[in-house]
Amino acid sequence: MKAIVVLSGGLDSTTVLYHAVKKYDEVEAISFDYGQKHRKELLCAMWHCDHLKIKHKTIKLDFSCFKSSLLSGGDDIPEGHYASDNMKSTVVPFRNGIMLAYAVGYAENVGADSVLIGSHSGDHTIYPDCTKEFTDHMGLASQFGTYNEVTIVSPFNDKMKWDLVKIGNDLGIDYSMTWSCYKGGDKPCGKCGTCVERIEAFEKNNLIDPIEYEKEVKE
Amino acid sequence: MKAIVVLSGGLDSTTVLYHAVKKYDEVEAISFDYGQKHRKELLCAMWHCDHLKIKHKTIKLDFSCFKSSLLSGGDDIPEGHYASDNMKSTVVPFRNGIMLAYAVGYAENVGADSVLIGSHSGDHTIYPDCTKEFTDHMGLASQFGTYNEVTIVSPFNDKMKWDLVKIGNDLGIDYSMTWSCYKGGDKPCGKCGTCVERIEAFEKNNLIDPIEYEKEVKE
Repeated sequence: MKAIVVLSGGLDSTTVLYHAVKKYDEVEAISFDYGQKHRKELLCAMWHCDHLKIKHKTIKLDFSCFKSSLLSGGDDIPEGHYASDNMKSTVVPFRNGIMLAYAVGYAENVGADSVLIGSHSGDHTIYPDCTKEFTDHMGLASQFGTYNEVTIVSPFNDKMKWDLVKIGNDLGIDYSMTWSCYKGGDKPCGKCGTCVERIEAFEKNNLIDPIEYEKEVKE
Repeated sequence: MKAIVVLSGGLDSTTVLYHAVKKYDEVEAISFDYGQKHRKELLCAMWHCDHLKIKHKTIKLDFSCFKSSLLSGGDDIPEGHYASDNMKSTVVPFRNGIMLAYAVGYAENVGADSVLIGSHSGDHTIYPDCTKEFTDHMGLASQFGTYNEVTIVSPFNDKMKWDLVKIGNDLGIDYSMTWSCYKGGDKPCGKCGTCVERIEAFEKNNLIDPIEYEKEVKE
């Protein structure tokens, strides 16, 4: 069994990568350079692939026709807790659809039978392309649309981010080498929705997030 | 109702474009420059959009990681009739999945509610990402994965290419400004599966394909 992991370099997809390495005979990773402000996440993706000796492909996507605060040139990233009203501007239209479609094509091309993605229950409220319904139908489109019936697997779809931290901690993942902050500054801001959610996920496990946040420096 | 048409510049998608202009209040077109040998099809796509005064966006896709005879640098395009054994090398893995996903994102971004694609029954035998099952599930993934529940419409999914020629002829389409040949030479070769299928589609309608083929010059 060979799997392709859609790897951003953030906490969720990195956890999927280590999970996949335990579960599949062979694993490759695919990342996307789509003009995200937090492009430095790709360095973390590379680091883990080097660390695990995994083949890693980064694809450049032209998202210049999309409007999102997540993209370079877009509005400022909102601060505060993850919720529909303040984080919706970070939605990139059908981003997971596009990335999964590419990963499915890549999987068929290299003879892999599965594509893994790191969606979790916490994402669902604001990102429609993280829901189980989306992923299930995308998976069926993939099975019908490829010769080798590539399956899309979303192993943590019914889990919350704090569950992933627990799983990843047990797998020995060095989370200091993951990047979540959407702002893409020198250090993670600690204030945007994804930073707040990440910090809480470690706290729920009585763990300290090993990454150094900008706000701590200012205090 | 606003629609985005996935437009290659070939016979099928051009027919969909003119069909859409009659059916929807507003239409835009999206094309993809993915390293296809027959990249000149994009000039035809542009021509029809100019002719119809339609907004047209061409997106560059990096397909360098895919192996297909359809792509620049790939093996020679096979000749003969469209059939699994000789045309399978022209498959680009999950190409329609990737293009549709992009078009869905584009539709959500510009507030369109539908994406139209020109798959037809003749494609199904060798292209799994042209089947009704694929398109139906991709459409559900799109509906669940976007805020405005973008629908994928494949209006000619149960028709054959000769039906499209009949429809397009009635719509007054200038098919001399469409490009189908996969080889991308100065003139269409008249020998590859897509040329053979196209010539037959006109013949079935007692029409003459208005494009000049290479083989006719050699005779």
